[in-house]
Amino acid sequence: MNSDLINERKDSTVNVEEMKNFLGHIQYGSESRFHEMMNLRDRMVAKIRPIYEENFYNLDRDEKYEMIFKKSLEIYDFLKENKISSDSTDVMKLGVIGGVLGPEKILFTLHTAAFKVSIELWGTNDQVKYWNSVMNSNFVIGTYIQTEIGHGTYVRGLETTATYDKVSKEFIINSPTLTSIKFWPGTGGITANFGIVMAKLIIDDKDLGIQAFIVQLRDFKNHRNIPGIETGDIGKKGGFESHDNGYIKFSNIRIPLFNMLMKNAVVHADGRFEKTGSELIMYACMLLLRGGLCSFGSILLSLSTTIAVRYSAVRRQTSNLEGIEPQIMDYQTQQFRIFHSLSSTYSYIFAANYLIKQITNTRSETNNFALIKPADLSRLHAISAGLKAQTFSTCLRFAQINRLCCGGHGYSAASGLIPIIQEADAGCTYEGDNVVLLLQTARYLLKCAQKGISPHYQPENWNNLVESDLFKQFKIYFDIYHRLYDEFMTEISGKMFFLIKEKGFSEYQAWNECTVQLVNIAKLYISIYVVSCSFASISLNQNENNRLVLSQLLKLFILYEITEDYAANTIRLNILDADGMKEFSERLLSLLKKVRKDSVVLVDSFNYLDSNLCSVLGAYDGNVYQKLFEFAKNSKLNTNNVHESYHRVLKPYFDKNKLRAQL
Amino acid sequence: MNSDLINERKDSTVNVEEMKNFLGHIQYGSESRFHEMMNLRDRMVAKIRPIYEENFYNLDRDEKYEMIFKKSLEIYDFLKENKISSDSTDVMKLGVIGGVLGPEKILFTLHTAAFKVSIELWGTNDQVKYWNSVMNSNFVIGTYIQTEIGHGTYVRGLETTATYDKVSKEFIINSPTLTSIKFWPGTGGITANFGIVMAKLIIDDKDLGIQAFIVQLRDFKNHRNIPGIETGDIGKKGGFESHDNGYIKFSNIRIPLFNMLMKNAVVHADGRFEKTGSELIMYACMLLLRGGLCSFGSILLSLSTTIAVRYSAVRRQTSNLEGIEPQIMDYQTQQFRIFHSLSSTYSYIFAANYLIKQITNTRSETNNFALIKPADLSRLHAISAGLKAQTFSTCLRFAQINRLCCGGHGYSAASGLIPIIQEADAGCTYEGDNVVLLLQTARYLLKCAQKGISPHYQPENWNNLVESDLFKQFKIYFDIYHRLYDEFMTEISGKMFFLIKEKGFSEYQAWNECTVQLVNIAKLYISIYVVSCSFASISLNQNENNRLVLSQLLKLFILYEITEDYAANTIRLNILDADGMKEFSERLLSLLKKVRKDSVVLVDSFNYLDSNLCSVLGAYDGNVYQKLFEFAKNSKLNTNNVHESYHRVLKPYFDKNKLRAQL
Repeated sequence: MNSDLINERKDSTVNVEEMKNFLGHIQYGSESRFHEMMNLRDRMVAKIRPIYEENFYNLDRDEKYEMIFKKSLEIYDFLKENKISSDSTDVMKLGVIGGVLGPEKILFTLHTAAFKVSIELWGTNDQVKYWNSVMNSNFVIGTYIQTEIGHGTYVRGLETTATYDKVSKEFIINSPTLTSIKFWPGTGGITANFGIVMAKLIIDDKDLGIQAFIVQLRDFKNHRNIPGIETGDIGKKGGFESHDNGYIKFSNIRIPLFNMLMKNAVVHADGRFEKTGSELIMYACMLLLRGGLCSFGSILLSLSTTIAVRYSAVRRQTSNLEGIEPQIMDYQTQQFRIFHSLSSTYSYIFAANYLIKQITNTRSETNNFALIKPADLSRLHAISAGLKAQTFSTCLRFAQINRLCCGGHGYSAASGLIPIIQEADAGCTYEGDNVVLLLQTARYLLKCAQKGISPHYQPENWNNLVESDLFKQFKIYFDIYHRLYDEFMTEISGKMFFLIKEKGFSEYQAWNECTVQLVNIAKLYISIYVVSCSFASISLNQNENNRLVLSQLLKLFILYEITEDYAANTIRLNILDADGMKEFSERLLSLLKKVRKDSVVLVDSFNYLDSNLCSVLGAYDGNVYQKLFEFAKNSKLNTNNVHESYHRVLKPYFDKNKLRAQL
Repeated sequence: MNSDLINERKDSTVNVEEMKNFLGHIQYGSESRFHEMMNLRDRMVAKIRPIYEENFYNLDRDEKYEMIFKKSLEIYDFLKENKISSDSTDVMKLGVIGGVLGPEKILFTLHTAAFKVSIELWGTNDQVKYWNSVMNSNFVIGTYIQTEIGHGTYVRGLETTATYDKVSKEFIINSPTLTSIKFWPGTGGITANFGIVMAKLIIDDKDLGIQAFIVQLRDFKNHRNIPGIETGDIGKKGGFESHDNGYIKFSNIRIPLFNMLMKNAVVHADGRFEKTGSELIMYACMLLLRGGLCSFGSILLSLSTTIAVRYSAVRRQTSNLEGIEPQIMDYQTQQFRIFHSLSSTYSYIFAANYLIKQITNTRSETNNFALIKPADLSRLHAISAGLKAQTFSTCLRFAQINRLCCGGHGYSAASGLIPIIQEADAGCTYEGDNVVLLLQTARYLLKCAQKGISPHYQPENWNNLVESDLFKQFKIYFDIYHRLYDEFMTEISGKMFFLIKEKGFSEYQAWNECTVQLVNIAKLYISIYVVSCSFASISLNQNENNRLVLSQLLKLFILYEITEDYAANTIRLNILDADGMKEFSERLLSLLKKVRKDSVVLVDSFNYLDSNLCSVLGAYDGNVYQKLFEFAKNSKLNTNNVHESYHRVLKPYFDKNKLRAQL
């Protein structure tokens, strides 16, 4: 064990076991569920060799694909044996599956889960029953097929057609153009054998909008594509090497009438079209998905933070006055970056799990999403869209900063940081482009402003919380956030009003003239949600010292926001004056020293195995350099001391040029 | 040709050929040299198949390494035939070599060039002569070997020893510990056969500091490691798959006395040690290197900008009121990001090439770096360190933003953006960690402040330039920059003074309490350099309309800096009031529309071949979707419609579980 890490752990005031339990409770709903999941993880890791122990980075894409597919099936079976659904969000959390797969997510169940949920939400009772029976007697690997080469965000723009043939009572699914070819569905290339295809329903040449159709992609018998369907992997990406995102091309294939999911709209056998259900159901599906994504993003963030904080305690660099190389964690510039990441991690974990609780509560109160009050649903939608965006932006920002904070070694794949950056990057685009999502949030905020109602969410029991002693320390910050929000919204609304009333702009034009500011106010709105949920969560902590440490960390997070991200608007809109801002900046710098002494234990509290982190820099025992050298020696390029290409490239070059072969 | 791109090119007011010549002049020193280089590139591309036309992304590391090595040798021979040195910085520019290799840099000559320069700078005349003769009669692939597993930034902390043996008149090079093993040298793993090793000189048990030693790593005859030396690749990294960064371990190997480079310090045969030369020579070497790096970084930046701007003209998304999907370039949020990138690209190109000119002029004026006035050298060093840091930070920032601006397809390797992000990321660490470099700049600035002298550099002919009409439009901005700098420096100096005089801190402690602010002022200082050089460069443009367009672009760049990066300090320190800031923000938003109409032509002016960009999204003809689909179909995972792993994984799983093989 590295002696610096021993000292960091000894000198911290945090009770690490209680902190783990507290975070476990937050993330898994109860301490007992947390322990159950950790126990499951440990048993899984004992049974299935984690990729951290395989020579994973040396594999090519084919080999990675095969390894992850194989382990995914093993995990799937292991979970079945243990009577735990592999779709369970608790299991899907990287903390559990990640023990085996590190940052490589389980290959198919994630997508099959989305496939199943869509059938449940959009299918009639008969359809749900039928497709469940299919799934019970076959090994269905499902995927959700929406985006096309030429169409992403704008669902109504999809070109794939589903034309109803009244004679045969079938739909003809077709990709009429190059740009209509489906692109990106996860596992859609070479793995999935079934898919839900979003396509434009056409009856009697009439465009009836986008509907969902179940299509078999590959034969159960031999896994070949069904005739008329061509699927394939889309090639290398910025990450996810083991995963096949697919392209899918339909050449007038036919599926039965029954394969359109008909809970919300019905096509009768004679071709009559009827809208039946509520569109709110669409929101419900997205809410569940986004809650999960926020949690996933916050976990990714915690992984990169753990690596950077531990390595900053181990790494020593440059000399101080006594000629000793200090731990790099003692440099202000290092603290300023990694503790920003640390404080953000805790805040986003609190917010993600708060959102999930909020969605679950809303769902169980009404027992049916369709019964939620529209006002509540709109707010939940605005929060979940914005929080997904901000979680992944934050995750990407700090994954990259943490990589830089680890210096050169951070750039080695041995650091474990590379796939985290890559996944965070992807997360900023998939399931909704971050900017588009923030504009959805902003649209809600603007409507609230026009109606004169507050958009802000108050966590449970908030009226009591604001009476607590702890809140006294935070009141000033909450006041700043809210005043800033109000002033900023007044400014934007004023600009919109001016453009429409004075300049004669349409609402559409005025909106597009303000989108840069609207994105910014949406971010601020989400920040207020994040700090509110964080404060509410911390208040639940029963260990006085741990609570104190967490409240310092939250203060640090808030001070970063006010003095960095929102500083310009805060001064400009007169929320703080120059002296006030300067004092806040100094307060931030002095808090860094307080957080420093508990920082290693604060990342230990995330409770990761080394096989979760897949990082030699973040290993629990801190034996960084030995592991790094082992990693290096294992490089595939080192199979022979003289690389085999020598005989094909350098040797012939020497020979051709008759270069002297000795000195 | 994509019709949107046709229209963009038709509607622009920019004279693209004149703009190309202007940028070519800036980057290659003269128009004729620019044309010579472009001609060279085109002939090279005609002779050596560019990797853009190979199936490069499907190769594994071994194959990539071999392909790049092979093409590097072909390029090397081609340049020799054309009597152009492969070390020439003009050739090394990605614009030239990049025609064949895309973002994969030529494997060995870059490092061999550093190897050669070091010998020239640190070797005696006899040594230079001898080693040149070795290089002329052998194929020396050299590398520069400094960093160790446990030691990076802090050169004095290196542990590798070079112990002088008076009896045999040899040095014994040794890696005494795990942490002393050399790590990261480019080509140091399996390619290089020679290296300059930085090691601690020890004579009679006395530590005489770090010196440079020439060591042969591999045998010319068979490329095997010389006995006592173990080298190997360090494994997968965050990019540079085709490149072998190495580890090098020495086990008491012996080299002749002659192999220590002795221009600055001499070891006599009897073991006497004598310092002879000036340490300024070290700076000189770094200056040249950093000028080149700044240029390289600005080219990388221009590549990602080109891709994002062109694709934003081709991509259409979401509907406007008329039901037409607009080009995404028409959305304010998209403009706000990609034109930030575009304006930064031009500014950093101007700054990098200005710095190179400044270094070259200083060198030719004195004909010897050792004769430069120390004050000039200190400033050049401060600028080059800070500009390297800011160039790569900016390059990484926008490579990532540009990737996000291209949506999902930006994440496909087909976008060409992935290796640009990866190279930019690496550039923030190699040849000096960005934060460490900015602190070096800050140290210089603090010294100037203490001496009461201005640290700012005024481009050539500045006194005339400020009399020009063009300057009248920029005066307000320059005033803001300079007042901001002065106020900010006063604040930091005040804090340092207070800590030392009032609180009794040592200078070392006070410095470490201020490093976060010091990094920020160093960034501001570099910004002032960048805008000054940009203004001076634009003033040289003879085409009135092109000059106007460039001056708008520079204004846009400045407005981003003032209203985004430096906004908080600008208001806080009372340089602008709230209304002033708001007006600047609105000015920025309205400039976006002006820049929009020339944006495609402004990236066309960088004059890249498609094989430079290696991007289907950035292709000149805009046939994005067809190329993207071709790329997808070529994926290695699609070799067979049913992936071969099916027979090893899924089929046995079906059989084991006796799953129904049909529906």
